[in-house]
Amino acid sequence: MNRYRPGFTGSPLDRVDPVRSDPDAYAAHASNWRARVLAFDGGDPLTDDVGNLAWTSMAGVSDDAELILLGLLEEKPHFVVIPHAPFADGFRTPSLWRVLNSLPAEQAAIYGTARSVIDWHHRHGFCGRCGGATAIFRAGWGRKCAACETEHFPRVDPVVIMLAEFEDKILVGRQPRFPPRNYSALAGFLEPGESIEEAVRRELFEEAGVIVSNVRYVASQPWPFPAASLMIACIGEAESDALTIDTTELEDAMWVTRSDVEAALAGAEDARFNAPPRFAIANTLLRAWLG
Amino acid sequence: MNRYRPGFTGSPLDRVDPVRSDPDAYAAHASNWRARVLAFDGGDPLTDDVGNLAWTSMAGVSDDAELILLGLLEEKPHFVVIPHAPFADGFRTPSLWRVLNSLPAEQAAIYGTARSVIDWHHRHGFCGRCGGATAIFRAGWGRKCAACETEHFPRVDPVVIMLAEFEDKILVGRQPRFPPRNYSALAGFLEPGESIEEAVRRELFEEAGVIVSNVRYVASQPWPFPAASLMIACIGEAESDALTIDTTELEDAMWVTRSDVEAALAGAEDARFNAPPRFAIANTLLRAWLG
Repeated sequence: MNRYRPGFTGSPLDRVDPVRSDPDAYAAHASNWRARVLAFDGGDPLTDDVGNLAWTSMAGVSDDAELILLGLLEEKPHFVVIPHAPFADGFRTPSLWRVLNSLPAEQAAIYGTARSVIDWHHRHGFCGRCGGATAIFRAGWGRKCAACETEHFPRVDPVVIMLAEFEDKILVGRQPRFPPRNYSALAGFLEPGESIEEAVRRELFEEAGVIVSNVRYVASQPWPFPAASLMIACIGEAESDALTIDTTELEDAMWVTRSDVEAALAGAEDARFNAPPRFAIANTLLRAWLG
Repeated sequence: MNRYRPGFTGSPLDRVDPVRSDPDAYAAHASNWRARVLAFDGGDPLTDDVGNLAWTSMAGVSDDAELILLGLLEEKPHFVVIPHAPFADGFRTPSLWRVLNSLPAEQAAIYGTARSVIDWHHRHGFCGRCGGATAIFRAGWGRKCAACETEHFPRVDPVVIMLAEFEDKILVGRQPRFPPRNYSALAGFLEPGESIEEAVRRELFEEAGVIVSNVRYVASQPWPFPAASLMIACIGEAESDALTIDTTELEDAMWVTRSDVEAALAGAEDARFNAPPRFAIANTLLRAWLG
């Protein structure tokens, strides 16, 4: 699958985990004059003249700013400031999608990591166990409850995203919120008590009435919208092509052929559907299936 | 990998997701006289005379008990009552391990699901966003904040667990808390912004100084200790067998051969190490590597 590197992967930053729990080492990083600070425009990445992520220096960061140490690259510490306001929910802005369409995957990986951890901070200002206020610690990679001292760490939600395959056709579907003519792989959150393969089978059956076996793993991708998902892409073999669509989840689902998928990925005007963007693992999954 | 079904998988219960958000359907399930209630002994599963999970009826459940609808089997709804007290932290009791060693995987899957969701309730009595008290909803598959109305859903933490492979040897390690002579696959939580493959490479490098490539997915397993982990088992190819052990994480790590692993899995008295129990995916991973 290395031929098809998923979007949001390949960050060149070394996460320097030991620094997070070493206050002296952390202080040295935070006062390093070569430190770089990721520039955000609301929830969108700011880019420079040639389309790379824009970075600023620590000079513009206020003393009371809360920082996340993203990692180290070429001996330079890389930080992001946690903005005061949470990100707006309507994340699929045309401007964001446009930037992501051109941002190299390894830079999108840095942006995605920053956005996910910031979003986690905004949703964990209070302790789930006792309701007390939490405070940032571990170089931005945790929050600690002042009242009961419970430590909280950034969470990742596993999501299965999958194609059912039947006689050289695959199943794609669309949610009502998708742009017109867009279809993608079906997907859903993995629940406690399930393996990846079990979640794939449950979701395909719940959403489309399709029974699959021989579920195989294809690739994975971190996905920062809206929080911090881990997209786990799989393909399963369907018993039949009969569909029972759960219309509370899907507006439509259909079986498509190789040539349908090729036309969609090529962006052909007469394609049967619009493919997901290249930075989404559903796109990787379609290409992997063709290949 | 189907030859090596991981522990805690294969639950026969239909999770009946639509029932969770349909109050009338839920009420019909909760008042069904054939409903079964999973019996817990503290955090341990109670078993009957022949070693199967013990179930009781709704007759003994108090009116104010909080219930989780685990699912449906043979038209019987299966519930578990959320105990008032959180589980004790010392989960690796000899009695629990003994029960799990003999409990069929598909019954351990039911127990593991119940335990994970109960544990989640105990850790989410308050809203992370505003600190308000939350209340159970969606048939036990969610909590809602009374103050800000944020909905919270049971979480799953992805964990990578992996073998590095070098010249027909694999790397195993032990944490200080392990029983004497026990070694297992290295493991660690996946972080926001990482793919599965990236987390595998980071953890092996952080804990053992081993650089791997060609990471391949092997199998996955839900793991209820202490919360709700998704164990994602992989194998990667190491560049060399040099080790730099992070002694804050590992007490020891070593390369073992096929015959070492065979002896450990067979429980031989002169084995170089004790293998993880059959219900742990590290055991599945060792068997898959041999096979």
